[in-house]
Amino acid sequence: MTADDLVTLRRDLHRKPEPAWREFYTTARIVDELESRLGDDLAELHVGPEAIAGDHRLAVPEETEFTHWYEQARDAGVDDATLERLDGGYTGAVAVLERGEGPTVGLRVDIDGLPQTESDDPSHRPVAEGFRSDHEGAMHACGHDAHATIGIGVLERIAESDFAGTFKVFFQPAEEVVGGGKAMAESDHLQDVDSLLAVHIGLDHPTGEIVAGIDGFLAVSHLEAEFTGASSHAGGHPEQGRNAVQAMATAVQNLYGIPRHNDGATRVNAGVVEGGSAANVIPAEARIVAEVRGETTDLMEYMKGRTRQVLRSAAAMHDCEVEIEIGAEAPSATSDEELVSIVADVAGETPGVERVLERDELGGSEDATYLMQAVQENGGSACYVGVGTDHPGGHHTATFDVDEASIQHGIDTLAGTIERLGHDQ
Amino acid sequence: MTADDLVTLRRDLHRKPEPAWREFYTTARIVDELESRLGDDLAELHVGPEAIAGDHRLAVPEETEFTHWYEQARDAGVDDATLERLDGGYTGAVAVLERGEGPTVGLRVDIDGLPQTESDDPSHRPVAEGFRSDHEGAMHACGHDAHATIGIGVLERIAESDFAGTFKVFFQPAEEVVGGGKAMAESDHLQDVDSLLAVHIGLDHPTGEIVAGIDGFLAVSHLEAEFTGASSHAGGHPEQGRNAVQAMATAVQNLYGIPRHNDGATRVNAGVVEGGSAANVIPAEARIVAEVRGETTDLMEYMKGRTRQVLRSAAAMHDCEVEIEIGAEAPSATSDEELVSIVADVAGETPGVERVLERDELGGSEDATYLMQAVQENGGSACYVGVGTDHPGGHHTATFDVDEASIQHGIDTLAGTIERLGHDQ
Amino acid sequence: MTADDLVTLRRDLHRKPEPAWREFYTTARIVDELESRLGDDLAELHVGPEAIAGDHRLAVPEETEFTHWYEQARDAGVDDATLERLDGGYTGAVAVLERGEGPTVGLRVDIDGLPQTESDDPSHRPVAEGFRSDHEGAMHACGHDAHATIGIGVLERIAESDFAGTFKVFFQPAEEVVGGGKAMAESDHLQDVDSLLAVHIGLDHPTGEIVAGIDGFLAVSHLEAEFTGASSHAGGHPEQGRNAVQAMATAVQNLYGIPRHNDGATRVNAGVVEGGSAANVIPAEARIVAEVRGETTDLMEYMKGRTRQVLRSAAAMHDCEVEIEIGAEAPSATSDEELVSIVADVAGETPGVERVLERDELGGSEDATYLMQAVQENGGSACYVGVGTDHPGGHHTATFDVDEASIQHGIDTLAGTIERLGHDQ
Amino acid sequence: MTADDLVTLRRDLHRKPEPAWREFYTTARIVDELESRLGDDLAELHVGPEAIAGDHRLAVPEETEFTHWYEQARDAGVDDATLERLDGGYTGAVAVLERGEGPTVGLRVDIDGLPQTESDDPSHRPVAEGFRSDHEGAMHACGHDAHATIGIGVLERIAESDFAGTFKVFFQPAEEVVGGGKAMAESDHLQDVDSLLAVHIGLDHPTGEIVAGIDGFLAVSHLEAEFTGASSHAGGHPEQGRNAVQAMATAVQNLYGIPRHNDGATRVNAGVVEGGSAANVIPAEARIVAEVRGETTDLMEYMKGRTRQVLRSAAAMHDCEVEIEIGAEAPSATSDEELVSIVADVAGETPGVERVLERDELGGSEDATYLMQAVQENGGSACYVGVGTDHPGGHHTATFDVDEASIQHGIDTLAGTIERLGHDQ
Repeated sequence: MTADDLVTLRRDLHRKPEPAWREFYTTARIVDELESRLGDDLAELHVGPEAIAGDHRLAVPEETEFTHWYEQARDAGVDDATLERLDGGYTGAVAVLERGEGPTVGLRVDIDGLPQTESDDPSHRPVAEGFRSDHEGAMHACGHDAHATIGIGVLERIAESDFAGTFKVFFQPAEEVVGGGKAMAESDHLQDVDSLLAVHIGLDHPTGEIVAGIDGFLAVSHLEAEFTGASSHAGGHPEQGRNAVQAMATAVQNLYGIPRHNDGATRVNAGVVEGGSAANVIPAEARIVAEVRGETTDLMEYMKGRTRQVLRSAAAMHDCEVEIEIGAEAPSATSDEELVSIVADVAGETPGVERVLERDELGGSEDATYLMQAVQENGGSACYVGVGTDHPGGHHTATFDVDEASIQHGIDTLAGTIERLGHDQ
Repeated sequence: MTADDLVTLRRDLHRKPEPAWREFYTTARIVDELESRLGDDLAELHVGPEAIAGDHRLAVPEETEFTHWYEQARDAGVDDATLERLDGGYTGAVAVLERGEGPTVGLRVDIDGLPQTESDDPSHRPVAEGFRSDHEGAMHACGHDAHATIGIGVLERIAESDFAGTFKVFFQPAEEVVGGGKAMAESDHLQDVDSLLAVHIGLDHPTGEIVAGIDGFLAVSHLEAEFTGASSHAGGHPEQGRNAVQAMATAVQNLYGIPRHNDGATRVNAGVVEGGSAANVIPAEARIVAEVRGETTDLMEYMKGRTRQVLRSAAAMHDCEVEIEIGAEAPSATSDEELVSIVADVAGETPGVERVLERDELGGSEDATYLMQAVQENGGSACYVGVGTDHPGGHHTATFDVDEASIQHGIDTLAGTIERLGHDQ
Repeated sequence: MTADDLVTLRRDLHRKPEPAWREFYTTARIVDELESRLGDDLAELHVGPEAIAGDHRLAVPEETEFTHWYEQARDAGVDDATLERLDGGYTGAVAVLERGEGPTVGLRVDIDGLPQTESDDPSHRPVAEGFRSDHEGAMHACGHDAHATIGIGVLERIAESDFAGTFKVFFQPAEEVVGGGKAMAESDHLQDVDSLLAVHIGLDHPTGEIVAGIDGFLAVSHLEAEFTGASSHAGGHPEQGRNAVQAMATAVQNLYGIPRHNDGATRVNAGVVEGGSAANVIPAEARIVAEVRGETTDLMEYMKGRTRQVLRSAAAMHDCEVEIEIGAEAPSATSDEELVSIVADVAGETPGVERVLERDELGGSEDATYLMQAVQENGGSACYVGVGTDHPGGHHTATFDVDEASIQHGIDTLAGTIERLGHDQ
Repeated sequence: MTADDLVTLRRDLHRKPEPAWREFYTTARIVDELESRLGDDLAELHVGPEAIAGDHRLAVPEETEFTHWYEQARDAGVDDATLERLDGGYTGAVAVLERGEGPTVGLRVDIDGLPQTESDDPSHRPVAEGFRSDHEGAMHACGHDAHATIGIGVLERIAESDFAGTFKVFFQPAEEVVGGGKAMAESDHLQDVDSLLAVHIGLDHPTGEIVAGIDGFLAVSHLEAEFTGASSHAGGHPEQGRNAVQAMATAVQNLYGIPRHNDGATRVNAGVVEGGSAANVIPAEARIVAEVRGETTDLMEYMKGRTRQVLRSAAAMHDCEVEIEIGAEAPSATSDEELVSIVADVAGETPGVERVLERDELGGSEDATYLMQAVQENGGSACYVGVGTDHPGGHHTATFDVDEASIQHGIDTLAGTIERLGHDQ
């Protein structure tokens, strides 16, 4: 792909951001691009339910949420045959090249957008150059448009190289809700992967910088607690109520007070709360949407256990019931040294790359860790690569954008690494 | 009015419940009924902005809330001239009889419905007999349809009697949100009232029982607190957030812990809470809708003062701002002994009344207290009368209904009392 | 007894205040006074273990607490024979007059002092006139010195009167810790009492005022909760601790938040808390000494039930155990109308009494209610009489004192009432 | 010193553990030992007020706490002249060797015991071999007896070596209360130190293991908060109280909820709390003794700032005052690479040392960091060395003991390092 091709593709995807499990247009566009560029070179192309283990999808929205996005993709020209394959929120794709004897190497890129309204400031480049989001309220504010583009670029490069072995690209949906990683990790396609690469652009690193191996993924778990008590008239019979808001407040206070842990960083957040119906009614219902994180999966499990205990005791204290639902989760993971040094080596020779950092910490969460962990448990190795890009706004903000020059840096570094893996082993 | 007339009128009002400040149909129907029944006997008939002190309306909804109810009233046949008088949520009416030398006596009845869906159970009489609410989601679940009917019935009775003096009926809007009492109390119409009666049906008293003087109104104040902090990524930078949900939870815990008071009963309730935007974002916004009550107005003020202090300190603790808005309020009040004994006397002689209780406690709040207080401060006396009625469901529940026989008990007791006031003095 | 005798006796007792269950000198002094004044007129004089049901003593201090007070009483001249009868904290006395056929009337007075240091201000009359407490840190700051004096004065008066029946005076120990009432109520001496009077001086009523029947005793229960968790190094392994102070703080926050009750006043107080061992150790132990009260015994039980629930849930939340011990308790009680009106009548004729209040509310707790309740359950009647006295400082404060003139008012009113009971029935 | 000498000295110190700022016997014993072993070889020997900057002592106990330990030291044979130099809690010593041209090297050892009762189990070696603590309730449970012994052993070794330069040993008092480090760091003796070594025995490393450079000291600060409100009768006038225990509980709940920080580990602990006077009194006083820690000094300051904010807001919420006193503090620190590698090198050649770890994390706090920081700020370098020892019980527990063989490992490794510093530079 020429530099222009990369920009065109990335901008097309940027215009059509789709949130988790609703990547209908995006998946179709990727499939089209792969078929037109690689055609018969592709040994396999798995789409939607064939690409993922559907039962392991997490954070899938209500059925009613799909229709709008489904119709919109059809309006944007996606053909019905493709759309039907994705129906019900089975998005994503896995593309496979078979190039003879050699290791099986995987590359994971994520493809979903965010529920964020894009800036309409004339100085925001997507506005200035006409590729701002067509989907009001949705935005590629984390660079997954560039990730998908990199995935296709690397596939083409490997197809043209003398790489020996099998190469798979995992176009993963629903990363932003920690929803798609597990479904992809549980699919058959990952079982035989010897080396897995994942990639993220930006992360506060400037254009020209490559981080060979990113670590410090916080394992994460979402929880939702529904407290149920009984309402009563707040003036007439306060004692007859079983106050769900008191239970919720007691829980919030104590959730943030879960002891810090000597083994490493932990996090907890009661991110959304609500409860009650009217000023003069003792509240019978309240809800907390929370998340916990840990520097290791064990630390996350520690936080999850203590969170349940707090929620249950707070309910019991105020004579309420509580139902706790565990939502999306992702484990922690570490980049393997052997892959990190190959990436670092290759990056050092990549044109435009001026600085290579061996390691850096993410400090957030990512469900690529599901895939990394699965490969590592099978005896393979994994590495999460950071590709610097000048980004005017922070990740997940309205003015995020990428420096499109860095897309080539990502393709070169990853393809170079994969080629080396297909020679050396 | 014949028994049939009373039932017909009450059922028509029951079919068209309208919430606070949206009593367009109800006000118009009352005006029609008064004009057709009393015609020139009415010395004055003040409607909408002429009936109330508009600036003192409390808990007025947003402009946009009116349209639906306004149009609906028009569709139900209310003429444009009347509707225009009520435009912008100026509802209610004051009707005046002038009957020569004598005291000025007032009767206050409230007319609004509740945001409650009425039962559609076939055994619910309004269903069985075809007068269930036409307005899905709204309901006369507190008997104000009967109160309005009583108001008209008493007017007609006094018009036909040899009562000497001036008699005014206050058809008050927006009682359910503690919103209309103050506006009516501040109007000129109340200034010259020597004796004020107010009435409520039900209150767990059966048909055939009259409570001559109800006391124990808790003074009440609604408060709304908006906490504003700053969001941050809950995994990446929890320390950069200023957590409005922590502030809110701290406040809730401490609101319920405001010390009990030796001077009498107090209440506090955080009836509605909400905050935050997503599991992985430190919440920047949170809200509490609360109310406090006191057995006396002073006790309510004590609770209000402590509530402010808790809210402000909880905000400061978590580096948040808080904006506190005082909403609707009503004072406490007491029924005057001289009126209570006249009512008790008259009730004892009223056909169908089998039991008269001198006094009972309401244990809730009511903004009739604004009118009672105003009259008492002017040197007049006031009395809140309870008219028993068998009600299958509790007040404010979907199966509430009244025994229509009790409407006549109310009219007889009140009219009898008023007549006596117009003779004895 | 002459006015001088009364003052001398009261001042002697005032100089020797003894806290609950340590009234060694006080009991001995009462016994001496009774024996010297009444001698053979006394049908029975029960002392210490014979006066009370020892197994029902509440809030008894540790054995080691007795020695100091025991020795001090010996040093003050109490003979060994008497002291031995009181050994181990069995204090108090019951004196009985038998005067032929007639009702059995009881009078209960309490005799213990408080752990309060008496003012040494020269303007404090006990200082000025030389009868300030000899026992530094203890004080008759609630008038029980006057009560004991009244008890003896009434006995002498009845002995000299033509009262027909049996008259008993209950000199009750340990009222201040709600400790002696139950033990006296469970003794045999109360079983046959037809009418019981109890008396309190002061209570914010001035000299010359008598309250014929005091009500509004709050039922009270003391609770002690011991939280046990596990300590750990607060820097090294905070996660290994099970934090008893966090459990305690959660409990305190929620105790004060127990819902108010529509049936009447309730109270809760975490009066003493402590926990932890060092700044750098996660606390393994914490303790709350709390009390709950209710306008009725049921309301107190409601508070007690909710308190247990809060304590247990707070412990569970922080992985701690909690042991809850119920301490001293007293029920609520009401003065019977028939006795109240006799007292009011008599008081109205008593020299020096200028104002008689039929009823007033105590608003606190008193374990005389155990005796009142026991008599009432046996079909008898009971009445708690208030004797006004000008007191410069509030009850339980360092400058409390009584106007000694009121002692005679108490004797006259009570003796007059008892005489009337011994004639009329 | 022979192996026997080392054991004899260490056991003598073990028998006489003295808590912070009361190391009268210990200081005297060190002075004696130094004078008898080194005599005129010592260029300087600073004792008590001359060894430390007295104004910078932290966590100094009340005057009354000294007497017992002072007298006990006299009884143990310390001469009055020496004792007088230490009067008022000025303990510790600095010994100086001057050996010509060369760098100034320092060694810091701490000398205080702990308020911990030593095990009397016959299997506890100090019991079995007769050197259990003579001071009931105090114990060398952290190995400072061995540290002092190592300090003297190294001094003797350097005196006998061909080290060129100046060598100082800092016998630091009051480490356990984070009290002596600052006073020693602020003394003149540290100003010219080019290289500073500190040493700790044990830390879960077995005999034969040396950690060349320990890092991960958590900066620490102690805080004490006194809440003052107003008491009132909990039954009679709960509303008149200003409840210091409610303020304290609100603070505790929110202290543990201070947000975690992305820059590294933080800690908070409300280690001791107390409040209130009696079950029936609204508590007017409450106290929290807390500590905060941070992986860096900045993180500790962050926690301290938030702690103040929580304490103040909790007081304001309940109408109380709060006085906050900052107690002992210690910064964080890092071992310098250049020293670490010398220590590692030397340790590798030390007889008995089987394993050398380049680095390890302490995970706790230490006020040696004051000295390390001071030296590093002056341009020098510092290193904290861990000397493994088999210890049957954990640090700060009743069965802690050291394997005396490791004392020689410490002396050899430290003396070897110091000699090399006195040659190479």
